[in-house]
Amino acid sequence: MEPFKVTILGCASAKPTPRHMPTSQIIDFRGNLFMIDCGEGTQIQIMKYGIKLSRLRRIFISHLHGDHCFGLPGLLSTLSLMGLNGEITIHLPEEGMRVLKPLIDYSSHAQDITFAPYSYGNNIIYEDDTIAVNTMPLRHRLPCCGFVFREKPKLPHINRAMTDFHGVPTCMFNRIKNGEDFVKPDGTVVPWQRLTTDAEPPRSYAFISDTLPLKAVASEVKGVDLLYHEATFAESEAERAKQTCHTTAAQAANIAKSADVGRLIIGHYSSRYDEELELLNEARAIFPNTDLTYEGMTFDV
Amino acid sequence: MEPFKVTILGCASAKPTPRHMPTSQIIDFRGNLFMIDCGEGTQIQIMKYGIKLSRLRRIFISHLHGDHCFGLPGLLSTLSLMGLNGEITIHLPEEGMRVLKPLIDYSSHAQDITFAPYSYGNNIIYEDDTIAVNTMPLRHRLPCCGFVFREKPKLPHINRAMTDFHGVPTCMFNRIKNGEDFVKPDGTVVPWQRLTTDAEPPRSYAFISDTLPLKAVASEVKGVDLLYHEATFAESEAERAKQTCHTTAAQAANIAKSADVGRLIIGHYSSRYDEELELLNEARAIFPNTDLTYEGMTFDV
Repeated sequence: MEPFKVTILGCASAKPTPRHMPTSQIIDFRGNLFMIDCGEGTQIQIMKYGIKLSRLRRIFISHLHGDHCFGLPGLLSTLSLMGLNGEITIHLPEEGMRVLKPLIDYSSHAQDITFAPYSYGNNIIYEDDTIAVNTMPLRHRLPCCGFVFREKPKLPHINRAMTDFHGVPTCMFNRIKNGEDFVKPDGTVVPWQRLTTDAEPPRSYAFISDTLPLKAVASEVKGVDLLYHEATFAESEAERAKQTCHTTAAQAANIAKSADVGRLIIGHYSSRYDEELELLNEARAIFPNTDLTYEGMTFDV
Repeated sequence: MEPFKVTILGCASAKPTPRHMPTSQIIDFRGNLFMIDCGEGTQIQIMKYGIKLSRLRRIFISHLHGDHCFGLPGLLSTLSLMGLNGEITIHLPEEGMRVLKPLIDYSSHAQDITFAPYSYGNNIIYEDDTIAVNTMPLRHRLPCCGFVFREKPKLPHINRAMTDFHGVPTCMFNRIKNGEDFVKPDGTVVPWQRLTTDAEPPRSYAFISDTLPLKAVASEVKGVDLLYHEATFAESEAERAKQTCHTTAAQAANIAKSADVGRLIIGHYSSRYDEELELLNEARAIFPNTDLTYEGMTFDV
């Protein structure tokens, strides 16, 4: 199966620690790389984990707090030094055009970088034959969006045993996969469904960035295979979470449960936690299929 | 003796490597901290080496290439989160007000940060009773300055044996240190020089950022105790150094030699060098009292 996987480059919250770097993730989708958020030091993480910058196509910035975007000028500057910035598109909140773009323009020979500002709302901001990416408005201290990456349905597979049996020439395979029946020389019609097997179901990944816990998120991410949800605090700090517009591990797990997702991963840990097992245990009590994220971990979608 | 020392936070050149972080240094001058340059990831280095952000007073940015300033928004944002940004002054090239300040303003509640833009030239940009900092124009691909930190001459020490012998009351000590002679009850005049011993000579540190090798630098840094000079390349890459407006290790050593400095330290290593011994050996052949800088090293001025 073609890859669709998420590698964690950073899972700290606003204040980085010697243990954790600020938020950034790499999605490897069928060989092309998408980045979500780009906290300070992301380019160093990329080198550390051997990620091929030449395959990076798009960067999605959830909001303009520094721990989600301050690595962008440096990363783009390095791409520029390496002559690799020709195909990069940056999807960023509109305000980023005022506060981030001047620095990028100044430092990155950015004429070949495409800026694609998006507005706060529920919109498809990228789409091709294989995937669609939509934003989902979150509730934080400034405009912030989550992202849902939905693979598009794939064509069915040719069932070689059946095509051989019915004498279907290979030049017909593509039309059959696209739903055309096969007519044998004697006029017999073989329905395309008999000549194919179902494709793997399309996969989906949702990234829920800094936010108060939202019911709307649960309905928007209904049934996704993999959900990343921030879980900055434990439930014992629920009041602090509310004040700072963040989510607790228990709240994230409740969203995963009511959305009936395949698997939940959490991150964006407050620096007050020396280890995050407290957060993990709290989430697993509600949604057992939960895991912590750590720098360098990769999750299949 | 009160401290005057330099700690290296990063010594990479433009492209950071898994081994080296981009440029930043901390000067501990009599308990107050000054920062020179602030490449991406500097705040992480500060945590790693246990540097007390509460003592940081001034940041000097040599030029606006990313590897010398992209850590600034994140550092100031963290200072802001910690409530420590009240006393910070940022000395930066004028263009920084256009390209860096908007991002800092947006992210750092920066109303208490003082921006002190400086123009390209040879000027004193900071001075108090104990130290003066002046800029020195360098020749790079954009406006870039070096900095010289010169301790001011200190008052002489009281020679307790002599003041006891002549019966000088302690309330006179400060006036004697400031050059007033002591008149004994019998009218005898004891010159202040006989009652004091010389203070330690004032110390000086020069930071020479990205530049072509300049004769003017050698005269400007004449006799400094400690000279940091970039040495991006070995002499075998002299042509490349010239093209990119950088200095070779041999050129840096020649400047140290003709300036007759106390000690030379080099850094800003090109990522092409797996280890920097080639650069060190080349420099030491010309100026023996040379050392490499590495992250975490501290040098007394």
